[in-house]
Amino acid sequence: MFFASDNGAPILPQVMEAMTRANHGYALSYGNDAAYGQMRDQIRDLFEAPLAEIALASTGTAANALALSLLTPPWGSVYCHSLAHIAVDECGAPEFFTHGAKLQLIDGPHGRIAPEVLRNVLATADRSVQAVQPSALSLSNVTELGTIYTAAEIAALASIAHLHGLRVHLDGARFSNALAATGASPAEMTWRAGVDVLTLGGTKHGLFAAEIIVVFDPENARDLPYRLKRGGQTGSKLRFVAAQIQTWLNDGLWLETAQHCNDMAASLAEGLHQIEGVEILDPVEANIIFARLPQAAFARAKAAGAVFYGNPQQSRFVSSWSTTQADVDALLAALRG
Amino acid sequence: MFFASDNGAPILPQVMEAMTRANHGYALSYGNDAAYGQMRDQIRDLFEAPLAEIALASTGTAANALALSLLTPPWGSVYCHSLAHIAVDECGAPEFFTHGAKLQLIDGPHGRIAPEVLRNVLATADRSVQAVQPSALSLSNVTELGTIYTAAEIAALASIAHLHGLRVHLDGARFSNALAATGASPAEMTWRAGVDVLTLGGTKHGLFAAEIIVVFDPENARDLPYRLKRGGQTGSKLRFVAAQIQTWLNDGLWLETAQHCNDMAASLAEGLHQIEGVEILDPVEANIIFARLPQAAFARAKAAGAVFYGNPQQSRFVSSWSTTQADVDALLAALRG
Amino acid sequence: MFFASDNGAPILPQVMEAMTRANHGYALSYGNDAAYGQMRDQIRDLFEAPLAEIALASTGTAANALALSLLTPPWGSVYCHSLAHIAVDECGAPEFFTHGAKLQLIDGPHGRIAPEVLRNVLATADRSVQAVQPSALSLSNVTELGTIYTAAEIAALASIAHLHGLRVHLDGARFSNALAATGASPAEMTWRAGVDVLTLGGTKHGLFAAEIIVVFDPENARDLPYRLKRGGQTGSKLRFVAAQIQTWLNDGLWLETAQHCNDMAASLAEGLHQIEGVEILDPVEANIIFARLPQAAFARAKAAGAVFYGNPQQSRFVSSWSTTQADVDALLAALRG
Amino acid sequence: MFFASDNGAPILPQVMEAMTRANHGYALSYGNDAAYGQMRDQIRDLFEAPLAEIALASTGTAANALALSLLTPPWGSVYCHSLAHIAVDECGAPEFFTHGAKLQLIDGPHGRIAPEVLRNVLATADRSVQAVQPSALSLSNVTELGTIYTAAEIAALASIAHLHGLRVHLDGARFSNALAATGASPAEMTWRAGVDVLTLGGTKHGLFAAEIIVVFDPENARDLPYRLKRGGQTGSKLRFVAAQIQTWLNDGLWLETAQHCNDMAASLAEGLHQIEGVEILDPVEANIIFARLPQAAFARAKAAGAVFYGNPQQSRFVSSWSTTQADVDALLAALRG
Repeated sequence: MFFASDNGAPILPQVMEAMTRANHGYALSYGNDAAYGQMRDQIRDLFEAPLAEIALASTGTAANALALSLLTPPWGSVYCHSLAHIAVDECGAPEFFTHGAKLQLIDGPHGRIAPEVLRNVLATADRSVQAVQPSALSLSNVTELGTIYTAAEIAALASIAHLHGLRVHLDGARFSNALAATGASPAEMTWRAGVDVLTLGGTKHGLFAAEIIVVFDPENARDLPYRLKRGGQTGSKLRFVAAQIQTWLNDGLWLETAQHCNDMAASLAEGLHQIEGVEILDPVEANIIFARLPQAAFARAKAAGAVFYGNPQQSRFVSSWSTTQADVDALLAALRG
Repeated sequence: MFFASDNGAPILPQVMEAMTRANHGYALSYGNDAAYGQMRDQIRDLFEAPLAEIALASTGTAANALALSLLTPPWGSVYCHSLAHIAVDECGAPEFFTHGAKLQLIDGPHGRIAPEVLRNVLATADRSVQAVQPSALSLSNVTELGTIYTAAEIAALASIAHLHGLRVHLDGARFSNALAATGASPAEMTWRAGVDVLTLGGTKHGLFAAEIIVVFDPENARDLPYRLKRGGQTGSKLRFVAAQIQTWLNDGLWLETAQHCNDMAASLAEGLHQIEGVEILDPVEANIIFARLPQAAFARAKAAGAVFYGNPQQSRFVSSWSTTQADVDALLAALRG
Repeated sequence: MFFASDNGAPILPQVMEAMTRANHGYALSYGNDAAYGQMRDQIRDLFEAPLAEIALASTGTAANALALSLLTPPWGSVYCHSLAHIAVDECGAPEFFTHGAKLQLIDGPHGRIAPEVLRNVLATADRSVQAVQPSALSLSNVTELGTIYTAAEIAALASIAHLHGLRVHLDGARFSNALAATGASPAEMTWRAGVDVLTLGGTKHGLFAAEIIVVFDPENARDLPYRLKRGGQTGSKLRFVAAQIQTWLNDGLWLETAQHCNDMAASLAEGLHQIEGVEILDPVEANIIFARLPQAAFARAKAAGAVFYGNPQQSRFVSSWSTTQADVDALLAALRG
Repeated sequence: MFFASDNGAPILPQVMEAMTRANHGYALSYGNDAAYGQMRDQIRDLFEAPLAEIALASTGTAANALALSLLTPPWGSVYCHSLAHIAVDECGAPEFFTHGAKLQLIDGPHGRIAPEVLRNVLATADRSVQAVQPSALSLSNVTELGTIYTAAEIAALASIAHLHGLRVHLDGARFSNALAATGASPAEMTWRAGVDVLTLGGTKHGLFAAEIIVVFDPENARDLPYRLKRGGQTGSKLRFVAAQIQTWLNDGLWLETAQHCNDMAASLAEGLHQIEGVEILDPVEANIIFARLPQAAFARAKAAGAVFYGNPQQSRFVSSWSTTQADVDALLAALRG
């Protein structure tokens, strides 16, 4: 009954096997090996983006912060939801990697930014030299509250951003969940919708130290090698990351596991709906559930060994590739008492 | 015949097995799991430093830069050899993580800083407010030229540094090679010799994305959690790094493999000495050899498929845990023609 | 009819004379001259703070940003009103000088932060390592909307901040206006109320390139000389700044001129109240007035040559030491038509 | 007998009068006033550079650091003489304003960089991603040791720099002394010789808080307004700086005073040559003299009240616009005993 985070799941068995298989002989470091090149081409194919630049980072925080550093000068600002991971969970990494750019926070229900709000915020933004200059929009899909933007919704927001001269970052720590939930293709959800840079998360999906930065317009990536190196993110044994990613993205494994993960959350949400006194706080559209729990149910779940964050007023349950129906049923049983 | 870098070797089989064994069930992320705590305690034991703070980084560059950021303010300076990795191979990562501290370069034969030179440099350093303030000494052991400082030599340099109010960093990307070469204990080579912060490299020794920062005085580590997080170095699935490190440090595996690695370099050096026209440029004390090669020998080795950096004037050969006597012999045969 | 900003007024005649008088002979630069020491002592006396450290900056932006850099680490956050000068008018200077600290914005009517809001914000602030660490509270007195905090109100806010481990900065670009308006002594409005660092503005009060940083606890000022130098703020001919400040602070000139300035605003506000269709938007407590103007009145004032910022919905009028009753009457006459 | 620094001289009487004359009425702040525009146009005319962008800074350190920040990314390097003011006297301001770029030090006799040395350094510079990227050359004219580059010498160095893709900064804290010494025109010494950005010092020449940044290609100045504001250098009462600069540059006052200043140094050098035991250490080409003094002569000069930096082994004498022949004679008399 581990619902604390999709971070806590083990490595996908197929991915671990791929690492083991890759473990023979020598290879040049820093991405100069054959597997790295194959992985890069596989990602380009998958995103139908033959010119995209690809880089790897060891954490989602590093990937996000590096991505933002490509899109804003130090005197720029990045608009994002007030609950965005970059705003509240990264101890200022975006400020560090961008040399002090400012995050401009936008509120909105269920973790989403509404187009009319964005339009108004950007239309009235101060662009005098006294002000930091509006430079980027950062969206998260899946959002921090477990909701989804469709590709069309991203396109609507991105077009507003572009109209005002901003570039667009997509924090895709749970990108595969969003694809599985919407049926959109990788391209539809990103560059076709106006996304300039994607951080594509592997770590929450059964990979280890494998986060991907996809820069669709190589012009935006000119500084990336230096920022990576200087940021301590130029990994040396990258064949082992490449092997993981290749296996994950191959034959749809990434979408299958994301779909399973979403299904487990849907099943859990369905069960929660039927428990008296439980209130689900945000639409359950991917693999995260926020719910208000009766005090007694909360206590029973904890006592039964369920692992999750929050308190009775707002508990969070996150499913992963590794979550089973039995896990869901056990949690529901514990909550029911 | 891969002698390009110890980075290019595969993962130690025992280490890969440990990762596989660790791959079951759930664990809290960010170092809040049991394996992480065990690893931390193992390192403390090994270094006889029960209060030391331990942190992990995914690259040696990040580990070095974070370590330095604990020892110098932005307006401080770090003294190091002019060939130090932090000075020439990290694209300014120390400047980035320290917010602009200055590296003050000291020359010295064979990659080493001589005590009398350090003494003179520090005695004459400008300490007025116009000057950056001398804050840290960074030593590398093994040095970039493959030479070694003994524990006594480190102690001599560290005592000069401390006398002038500097703290001492040891870049131990090849620390295990230095221990194997000198027979010193981990404590003797570090805190007993005056080292304040060690970066202990795993990646060049058959680990993957596993670099360790050891801060002997916890007072120096107060900011470390924030710097790590903000620097994008707070890995989430750290049980897999902990498993690697535990296995590596257990039962002397780290020293055995380092000894083997050093032995292979010694064997190669012995062979090189006997080849007419080859000149070994720096004392071979660990696992790195710099040599001048006859043009024809250089060409023959390359033609035979040997992988190494440099040119006939200065070629570099690095052995690893994975280097075999057969590799050495094949390289020597190719060079001999 | 210049009401654009108190920045636009000339230099006080007495202050200009003092500069002229100081212009003979040689003096050591960088504050090592006699006049600088006298000025420092005068400020210490005036604030009843014999240990306070004093520094000079050439702009209010530099003074604020340097002051904040003493109070927050790069991974810290500074709470301030969402309209604060540091938040909206300095192009990210606080982020630059603090190496990326985050400003946390608090709303509140008329430019003021309410104690209960601050208490709630700090009580619920995330202090985990994922979050930037709450480090400082920055208040502005006079506020950006022309309102005032009394010394007691500052004390109330500062005590909440201190309770949560934050230190307190006071942006006193218009500190003399606040003193004149409240009758508080310099000490009462600052360190006795819990202010740790004050930026005391001279430029808006008839001085030239003269902003003062007052650090009441010298412990907070240890890094200040380096930050000043590195920030390009260690002026060389400081005897000319010292001469200005000495004259301004001597015999109450600073309070007299501030009182006159406030009086002119009060007179203007009184006149505005009597003009049909004019709505004063914020309490007029010092020298700044925000008002809604009838479109025709706005146009008439502009046509008559009145200089002020804003639009009919929100026009801003700022008086200065140089504003005369005739200026006020002329503006009122133009508005009345 | 004040020879400590040209910083310590008073304000030129004509310049002080200009400030006094400018002190009436209101003016928009931040350079939006008429005098500022006139000053900008005057500088463009003087440099025959109608498109040049002009900015003001309050200190030479700020001007230099801002200038460099236009020419190098954070992962770039700036080549300069090992004695350059930016390298040793600014407490890391270049690193601060450039967000961590690296200064690469080049030795050379008498404070000058030799073309053949620069050519070799740049030809062998590492340009891999591990290395900081060579981005700028910074020259000082007058140099820190009081020597001069002719316009042709600057052109030779700049052409080497440009050939390797670097841009060129000229630290002109004593630019007027260099012009007076060589007879070159402002254009010949700067953009015609390949200088991209000049910092033109006023403070050492009888101005107060008046340093000028001249960016010859406006493309290089696109970020400048934001960097200025964010760096706390957007002064508000700039009409008083403009008035100073206009007067200084008008009718050749800047060159006349520089010539007088150089003449005083020449006269002092001539006198020093004739004192037994005095050795002049560097060619005296402008207004700075370094000399070895007999211990007794040194002591006599100090006892007589002469103010200068250094010790008997290396004493420094700097003349200013305010130095008189009587000052020179008195110093010589004191040294002679």
